[in-house]
Amino acid sequence: MNYIAASIAAGLAALAASYGNGHVISKTIESMARQPELSGQFRSTMFIGVGLIEAVPIIAIAISFLLLFQ
Amino acid sequence: MNYIAASIAAGLAALAASYGNGHVISKTIESMARQPELSGQFRSTMFIGVGLIEAVPIIAIAISFLLLFQ
Amino acid sequence: MNYIAASIAAGLAALAASYGNGHVISKTIESMARQPELSGQFRSTMFIGVGLIEAVPIIAIAISFLLLFQ
Amino acid sequence: MNYIAASIAAGLAALAASYGNGHVISKTIESMARQPELSGQFRSTMFIGVGLIEAVPIIAIAISFLLLFQ
Amino acid sequence: MNYIAASIAAGLAALAASYGNGHVISKTIESMARQPELSGQFRSTMFIGVGLIEAVPIIAIAISFLLLFQ
Amino acid sequence: MNYIAASIAAGLAALAASYGNGHVISKTIESMARQPELSGQFRSTMFIGVGLIEAVPIIAIAISFLLLFQ
Amino acid sequence: MNYIAASIAAGLAALAASYGNGHVISKTIESMARQPELSGQFRSTMFIGVGLIEAVPIIAIAISFLLLFQ
Amino acid sequence: MNYIAASIAAGLAALAASYGNGHVISKTIESMARQPELSGQFRSTMFIGVGLIEAVPIIAIAISFLLLFQ
Amino acid sequence: MNYIAASIAAGLAALAASYGNGHVISKTIESMARQPELSGQFRSTMFIGVGLIEAVPIIAIAISFLLLFQ
Amino acid sequence: MNYIAASIAAGLAALAASYGNGHVISKTIESMARQPELSGQFRSTMFIGVGLIEAVPIIAIAISFLLLFQ
Amino acid sequence: MNYIAASIAAGLAALAASYGNGHVISKTIESMARQPELSGQFRSTMFIGVGLIEAVPIIAIAISFLLLFQ
Amino acid sequence: MNYIAASIAAGLAALAASYGNGHVISKTIESMARQPELSGQFRSTMFIGVGLIEAVPIIAIAISFLLLFQ
Amino acid sequence: MNYIAASIAAGLAALAASYGNGHVISKTIESMARQPELSGQFRSTMFIGVGLIEAVPIIAIAISFLLLFQ
Amino acid sequence: MNYIAASIAAGLAALAASYGNGHVISKTIESMARQPELSGQFRSTMFIGVGLIEAVPIIAIAISFLLLFQ
Repeated sequence: MNYIAASIAAGLAALAASYGNGHVISKTIESMARQPELSGQFRSTMFIGVGLIEAVPIIAIAISFLLLFQ
Repeated sequence: MNYIAASIAAGLAALAASYGNGHVISKTIESMARQPELSGQFRSTMFIGVGLIEAVPIIAIAISFLLLFQ
Repeated sequence: MNYIAASIAAGLAALAASYGNGHVISKTIESMARQPELSGQFRSTMFIGVGLIEAVPIIAIAISFLLLFQ
Repeated sequence: MNYIAASIAAGLAALAASYGNGHVISKTIESMARQPELSGQFRSTMFIGVGLIEAVPIIAIAISFLLLFQ
Repeated sequence: MNYIAASIAAGLAALAASYGNGHVISKTIESMARQPELSGQFRSTMFIGVGLIEAVPIIAIAISFLLLFQ
Repeated sequence: MNYIAASIAAGLAALAASYGNGHVISKTIESMARQPELSGQFRSTMFIGVGLIEAVPIIAIAISFLLLFQ
Repeated sequence: MNYIAASIAAGLAALAASYGNGHVISKTIESMARQPELSGQFRSTMFIGVGLIEAVPIIAIAISFLLLFQ
Repeated sequence: MNYIAASIAAGLAALAASYGNGHVISKTIESMARQPELSGQFRSTMFIGVGLIEAVPIIAIAISFLLLFQ
Repeated sequence: MNYIAASIAAGLAALAASYGNGHVISKTIESMARQPELSGQFRSTMFIGVGLIEAVPIIAIAISFLLLFQ
Repeated sequence: MNYIAASIAAGLAALAASYGNGHVISKTIESMARQPELSGQFRSTMFIGVGLIEAVPIIAIAISFLLLFQ
Repeated sequence: MNYIAASIAAGLAALAASYGNGHVISKTIESMARQPELSGQFRSTMFIGVGLIEAVPIIAIAISFLLLFQ
Repeated sequence: MNYIAASIAAGLAALAASYGNGHVISKTIESMARQPELSGQFRSTMFIGVGLIEAVPIIAIAISFLLLFQ
Repeated sequence: MNYIAASIAAGLAALAASYGNGHVISKTIESMARQPELSGQFRSTMFIGVGLIEAVPIIAIAISFLLLFQ
Repeated sequence: MNYIAASIAAGLAALAASYGNGHVISKTIESMARQPELSGQFRSTMFIGVGLIEAVPIIAIAISFLLLFQ
């Protein structure tokens, strides 16, 4: 039963992180094309944003590992 | 049974946090590209917003850990 | 059975709060970029709005804790 | 069985209130950015609207508590 | 069995009322921003509309209470 | 079994009435903002429309009461 | 078993009638705002349309009553 | 078992007829507002269209009655 | 078991025919409003199209009758 | 069991054929309104397209008949 | 059990082929209306495209026949 | 059990290939209409793209055959 | 049981690869039509992108084969 | 049971990675077409983004392998 639980948590975490990151990074590239002189600022904001987005999915991945080796 | 419950709570929390953060951060980067001189203000509002958004998912993660070690 | 119930309540509360907050905060940042001189007013309305939105999810979280320690 | 019922009612009430409030408050902030001199009127209409929207979800929360302590 | 029934009726009623009210009230605020001199008329129509929308969900809430105390 | 049936009928009727009414009333307010001098005509059409829309959901509510007291 | 069947038929009929009527009536009000001098013609077409739309849902309601008193 | 079958056929037929009719009639009213001098032609096409659309749902209703009195 | 099968086939056939016909007929009326002098040609194409669309659903209805009287 | 299988195959084939045909025919009528002098060419392409689209659903209908008389 | 499997494979293949073909053929007709002098080239590309699209659904149909006569 | 598995793999592969191919080929035809002098280049890219898209569905079809003859 | 698992993994991998590749390749062809002189650069980026997209689905296909021959 | 779990985790990881990568890479190619002189910068940001997006799905793939060889 905990095998199914681990896979659900890992799968939803992967979907969540990819959805959030995909939107932020594609918007970053779009904004770079509009204002190339600000690309450093966009990229630093992107790294902060990716870090903030991946916080909760990484915890869900940790929960998935805890479920796996229980 | 509580293993499945922990994975559902963790997975939905990850989806929720990534959805909300993804929208706020991509809108922040888009607004920076429109008004670069206000980027400090946008970024501070973004940090406040990310904190407010992640409040409830973090509690759901805590509930998930409580379910895991019960 | 109450473990599943607690995780459903917590997960839906996290989704609800992130959906509502994500929309309000991203709209706030977009409005700041249009009218920077009103950013204080936008931010105060945002705090009121986030408080109003998170009222019902926080009660759902409380119900989730009640279910957890029953 | 009433534990699941309480969590469904609380979760759907949280989703409903966040959906309605999120739309009204984000539209309020957008309207403020268009007509800043009417922001008091918008905000008072917003409070009335949030009150009207949260009426039925709060009753659903009350039903959830009744189910919880039955 | 009637506990589940009560929570389904209450949850769907909350979703229905919030969906309808959210659309009407956000459209009211948007219309106020376009024609501020008609805001009294918009608001009175909004109150009539909210009353008409909440008629059927309130009956569903009544059915939910009837199911709860049966 | 008839308890579940009553709640499904009442919940779907609430969703249906709120969906239809929400669209009609928000369109009425939007049309008022465009042509304020026709607001009486819009409002009378709105009342007719709301009556026509709520006809079938009210019958579904009646079916729900019949199921409840069977 | 026929109780569930009656509620499904009544609920789907309510959804169907509200969806169709809501679209037709809101489009009628929108067209009135564009061409006020044709409002009588729009309204008569609306009544014909509502009658045509509600034909099949009313039969579904009749089936629901037949299932209820079987 | 045939009660459930009758309600599914009747409910889907009601949904189908309302969806098709709602689109055709609302498009008819919209076209009348654009070209008022062709309203007779639009209305006659609408009647033909409604008849063609309701052909298959009416057969599904007939199947539903056949299932009901079997 | 064949009762359920007959109702599924009839209901999906009704949905399919109404979806296809609704799109074709509403597009026909829209095109008439743009080019009134070609309305005969549009209408004849519409009749051909409705015949082509209803071919497969009518066969599904026939399968439904075959299942009903088996 | 093969009754249910026959109805699923027939229903999905009806949905598929109506979806594809509805899009192609409505686009044909729309293109006729834009370039009336090419209507013969559009109509011949439409007949080829409808034939190509209905190839696979007709085979699914044949499979449905094979399942029915097995 | 292989009856259900055959119908699922045939139904999904019909849906897939109709979805892909419907998009390609309707886009072909739309492009013909924009550039009539290239209609031969569009039509030949359409035939190649329909052949490429129907490759995998035809294999799924073959799998469905293999399941049917097993 | 492997019959159902073979049909699921074949059906999803058909859906996947038709979705991807349909988008690529319709976009190719649309681009040809905009820049007819590049049609050879578009068509060669289309063939490469169709080959890349169909790689994974073809493997899924192979897995389906392996499941079928196991 | 591992047959179903292999088909789910293969089917989802096919859907994933076709979705991602379809978007990238259709966007490549669209960009070629806008800037034909950069088509070599677009195509090389497309090949890199297709390789990056198909990395994870290919691993899922490998997992599917491992499940198949277990 | 762990076979199903491994396939769910691998399938969702493939969907997640393809969704995120597909959006980022197609946006990169679109931005290259707008500002060709920045294509090196876009491509390097794309590689960083793809790496960030695929982090969590790769962990889910690792969890899937762990489930497979347990």
